[in-house]
Amino acid sequence: MTNSSSSVLLSLDEAYELSHAVLLKNGMNARHAAAVARSVVAGQRDECHSHGMYRLLVCVKGLRSGKVDGNAEPVVVDVSPALTRVDARAGFSQVAFDVGTEHLVRKARDVGIAALAINNCFHFSALWQEVEALAGLGVAAMAMTPSHSCVAPAGGSRPLFGTNPFAFAWPRPGDFPFVFDFATSVVARGDIELARRKDEKIPFGWAIDNEGLPTDDPGRAFEGAMLPFGSYKGSALSVMIELLAGPLLGDLMSFESVLVDAGAAITPYHGELLIAFGPDRFAGADGAKTNLQRAEHLFDAIVDQGARLPSQRRFEARAKTSREGVRIDRVLFDEIRAL
Amino acid sequence: MTNSSSSVLLSLDEAYELSHAVLLKNGMNARHAAAVARSVVAGQRDECHSHGMYRLLVCVKGLRSGKVDGNAEPVVVDVSPALTRVDARAGFSQVAFDVGTEHLVRKARDVGIAALAINNCFHFSALWQEVEALAGLGVAAMAMTPSHSCVAPAGGSRPLFGTNPFAFAWPRPGDFPFVFDFATSVVARGDIELARRKDEKIPFGWAIDNEGLPTDDPGRAFEGAMLPFGSYKGSALSVMIELLAGPLLGDLMSFESVLVDAGAAITPYHGELLIAFGPDRFAGADGAKTNLQRAEHLFDAIVDQGARLPSQRRFEARAKTSREGVRIDRVLFDEIRAL
Repeated sequence: MTNSSSSVLLSLDEAYELSHAVLLKNGMNARHAAAVARSVVAGQRDECHSHGMYRLLVCVKGLRSGKVDGNAEPVVVDVSPALTRVDARAGFSQVAFDVGTEHLVRKARDVGIAALAINNCFHFSALWQEVEALAGLGVAAMAMTPSHSCVAPAGGSRPLFGTNPFAFAWPRPGDFPFVFDFATSVVARGDIELARRKDEKIPFGWAIDNEGLPTDDPGRAFEGAMLPFGSYKGSALSVMIELLAGPLLGDLMSFESVLVDAGAAITPYHGELLIAFGPDRFAGADGAKTNLQRAEHLFDAIVDQGARLPSQRRFEARAKTSREGVRIDRVLFDEIRAL
Repeated sequence: MTNSSSSVLLSLDEAYELSHAVLLKNGMNARHAAAVARSVVAGQRDECHSHGMYRLLVCVKGLRSGKVDGNAEPVVVDVSPALTRVDARAGFSQVAFDVGTEHLVRKARDVGIAALAINNCFHFSALWQEVEALAGLGVAAMAMTPSHSCVAPAGGSRPLFGTNPFAFAWPRPGDFPFVFDFATSVVARGDIELARRKDEKIPFGWAIDNEGLPTDDPGRAFEGAMLPFGSYKGSALSVMIELLAGPLLGDLMSFESVLVDAGAAITPYHGELLIAFGPDRFAGADGAKTNLQRAEHLFDAIVDQGARLPSQRRFEARAKTSREGVRIDRVLFDEIRAL
């Protein structure tokens, strides 16, 4: 650990130990504490600060509220050769994902396409972590979840959808997977929060006020609604996510999840849908090998014209923080230690 | 048929008979002619003119080029309990979709999630037609295809992706399904073509010129590249579509498909991926019924705040043209009859 007046430098191991200890101290069992600590440290490591160690504050708030069960034992239901359900039983999603992963990957390899439905989980982890892990096991994968209502449908005026993230990963032999993970809102809620804290304006197009009019005032944006990215197209995708990760699974949509929260402002409680694709089953092992190599030409053509692949910044941050450690704001560090 | 100087009014039956006859006359067998005629008339009926009867011109061009086989017999491969492949054998996609549908729907019902991979097809049909048909059979469905390179990646400067459509449908008891179908480019290629014909400017943001700079000139846009919707997010989705409906299936990406076309400017030749979800298998028959009813609250909440559901314009057009018939530009009508 290296200190300065305003920040603290931790190795990844130190960051993990601190996170793990705080979660244990607040009533989580070892399995949950390990999974959640890995998750927040991965966010910090990749400099995705919105999914980094600051989330420990929200985790502990959830545990202390009595709503999140830090000792939940997920129940796996082996529905069919292509479908697995995991009931997270009001625990955080990470352990439920971990126990579901082997089923999802095995089934995708066996029958080509498979789904993992996680129900009744408190979910805050970045979806890139999950699809990246799946691609690391050789399958392509999609993931989606609703969240809490804060985004208006295109053409509407009131919050209905969550920021509803959608993520995808594709395995790349000998390289990091191709991974993207985006909110279906124009920006993350945190971007508006940040502007409010700094007393700055936000660009028009991010949000509307409570009369449905465009606003550049972050305070009015919170009274109104955020907007979906790409207008009607992003709005349509967001509906798809509400439906597939909601009613299809028998779980909550964002406007239902926010009612369950009842103002507690903890992590959203809902379901998640993951879909995995086994390249070998689609094309045979030899075919799949050729196909994965052919996909590399697409990535080359993107990079060769000066565009970036998504997640490159994360992978660069990972390389740096794995050597140098992660730097945490001292105020946050003290808050975490005091939990 | 009712004529005026500039347009011709046809009943839907007349529109079908004309389309069917033109396709038969140009060497298609009865099965293909019926499937393609249904497809173009459905586009005309729903006033999706870009997928309406004008496509007959492109179909016949494809048939006359010798590249499209109007008599292709699709081959079904029953890969697994969740996966079906259909080799379209260089025919148009419609018959391949028709023969694959029963497999896809049965498997989605049986195991909860299933995929249909169509290979080696010439594809021009609107994806909404396919997912809407699937939702009519009680499953939720996604569909995606690459096309021909004309869209630059976000941050890039040269055509690489196709307009790569993505479609989704969700069954609604007693109503039209919830359906969307959008290009991952900002606009359809036809919108830029239309501006060029009318000698009008296009909005900045639709396209870049051949130096990668923003342009409002449709001619320069065609020399340069179209842009993905929603910047990096739409661009990422477009990559996903290239990968899942391309290398995963062992089929062509848009930059490969355009090479096969070799300047013939016919319908793109590639693969398509469809994914279907069986609500009953995810939640049991009683659960699924409740879940579908619960999803209606989301649609109600969208409409109640003055936003529209996607496809509403199509459904309204369908009601109108089913009563009144479809009106076709006389020049187009004469061109079709002369085929």
